[in-house]
Amino acid sequence: MGGGSWATALAKLIIRNEERIIWYMRRDDRIEEFRRIGHNPAYLSDVEFPIDRIDFTSDINAAARDADTLLMAMPSPYFKSHLAKLDTNISDKNIVIATKGIIPDENQLVTDYLEERYNIDPSRMIVVSGPCHAEEVALGRLSYLTVGSESKDAAEAFARCLNGPAMRTLISGDVRGIEYGGVLKNVYAIASGIVHGMKAGDNFQAILVANAAKEMERFIDKAVGGERCICHSVYLGDLLVTAYSKFSRNHNFGSMIGRGCAVRRAMMEMEMVTEGYYAAKCMHEINLVIGADMPILEGVYDILYRSLPAAKIMERISHHLT
Amino acid sequence: MGGGSWATALAKLIIRNEERIIWYMRRDDRIEEFRRIGHNPAYLSDVEFPIDRIDFTSDINAAARDADTLLMAMPSPYFKSHLAKLDTNISDKNIVIATKGIIPDENQLVTDYLEERYNIDPSRMIVVSGPCHAEEVALGRLSYLTVGSESKDAAEAFARCLNGPAMRTLISGDVRGIEYGGVLKNVYAIASGIVHGMKAGDNFQAILVANAAKEMERFIDKAVGGERCICHSVYLGDLLVTAYSKFSRNHNFGSMIGRGCAVRRAMMEMEMVTEGYYAAKCMHEINLVIGADMPILEGVYDILYRSLPAAKIMERISHHLT
Repeated sequence: MGGGSWATALAKLIIRNEERIIWYMRRDDRIEEFRRIGHNPAYLSDVEFPIDRIDFTSDINAAARDADTLLMAMPSPYFKSHLAKLDTNISDKNIVIATKGIIPDENQLVTDYLEERYNIDPSRMIVVSGPCHAEEVALGRLSYLTVGSESKDAAEAFARCLNGPAMRTLISGDVRGIEYGGVLKNVYAIASGIVHGMKAGDNFQAILVANAAKEMERFIDKAVGGERCICHSVYLGDLLVTAYSKFSRNHNFGSMIGRGCAVRRAMMEMEMVTEGYYAAKCMHEINLVIGADMPILEGVYDILYRSLPAAKIMERISHHLT
Repeated sequence: MGGGSWATALAKLIIRNEERIIWYMRRDDRIEEFRRIGHNPAYLSDVEFPIDRIDFTSDINAAARDADTLLMAMPSPYFKSHLAKLDTNISDKNIVIATKGIIPDENQLVTDYLEERYNIDPSRMIVVSGPCHAEEVALGRLSYLTVGSESKDAAEAFARCLNGPAMRTLISGDVRGIEYGGVLKNVYAIASGIVHGMKAGDNFQAILVANAAKEMERFIDKAVGGERCICHSVYLGDLLVTAYSKFSRNHNFGSMIGRGCAVRRAMMEMEMVTEGYYAAKCMHEINLVIGADMPILEGVYDILYRSLPAAKIMERISHHLT
């Protein structure tokens, strides 16, 4: 479910291991062109698909009815509006969540939202995350994804659908920790981009990113509890690739702001959704309840939503770094 | 003590806070030109010095006799040969160690070597480390250094000599942990450079660097004991700036090897000492005793010293990453 680059990269991995897939995407014109040219017309156009083994549909209810496992890879800002069209009961389906983010307005993790609104048992839910730019997965470069679920069997079963010569999977039970990590890293990538755009230097950027890892750990420890090694690829690895990679939309968005571009203008210049922009607001609001010490998150929020000058906020953040 | 870029950047910080310094460097011709042109002729040539407040000398004994605090910033491969010329008792001096590395042949941390060979009490020794490219310190970009000592008073006193508008200092008691971190990050920067040179992708590089942080933590925990947060800027921050920065010699050295350049040839092309090359051998030998699980260190050692092909070794490493 989803027509973006991440949905496309995951579909490519899965179709190597599965005979048939049903692919839901919103726009009929995209589906038609996809069928005609053999690849997604909008994203990862180098990735060819065996279209005779794909049942495309723009009807989310048809997709939900016919599939036993639903892989949701819509960008989080549109997640709710896609599912709003659903009048099929999906509580007996396995749900794989590749969407990274918080459901806007609800300020809920995707798993919490699905459990509450669609009555999905947590044991049926699987999250997929990790340092995995869709572009590199598509290029066949060695990547690692972490598959997290309360059910180890479910995680292992889905991991087998992803594995391939250039894709290694790791299994985790820290579902909510992985989800929060996947949301926060987009916020920190914006911060890293701002510092890059300000030309504040590699030293300061490294200190900011290292402190972002600590801040992420503090938040997850407080919000979720349990034990985790924040240096695992699904937390720190994903943070690094997003904060340092030239493929990162959030980093590039931040970089524009750091160079002095107004937030609204930077939003317009980005062709793809910048998830960290929404995530900063959601996480700010969630943290009003959790109360973790998060100077970087709060700084990004102040820059994006309170129009405070980036240089002044980075100076404020700098006094909290260790 | 030392005429390289790191010595030069530190001297610039200190001369802003101190009336006079004595500066020992090996070559008389360099001293003469430095005096004439007002800056280090070989490194950071944009950084002007008030030379009337500097007593240059190429006589290490004169420097050691006249100063109450010796700041040692010679590259670790030459550390021993510099000090071999010393016939002055320095056991009553305060010693600041800015050299990152292990003493070759001895396979000792600098503090251990100074304690054993020069009878310096650990309470008189201070280490300076952190994500601090000399070039950026020289450009006045905001940076953070960690000053570590068994004596908190000594650390705080020296930190005051460094502080300035663009330099923040942090205090730590984890002297040996900081030293090992400063050595290992150079090895991991070579690994990161190799992956970059191989064009293995941002995903894999991020996973490698995240796992390097874990490997560093495993080693220090086992070799030193005690408690530390590996995400502190002195460990993870320094690793990130070295592994990701274009200023990093070790990264660039690794990148050449990743592109297929022979190790010996890459050594010749680097104009400055590549400390990680020596560190890989020392740490490999030290870890024969410590016995920490270090697949990345061992891989770099095999590439550099056993001429094993980088692609094959990275494939081997990839099976140990999480």
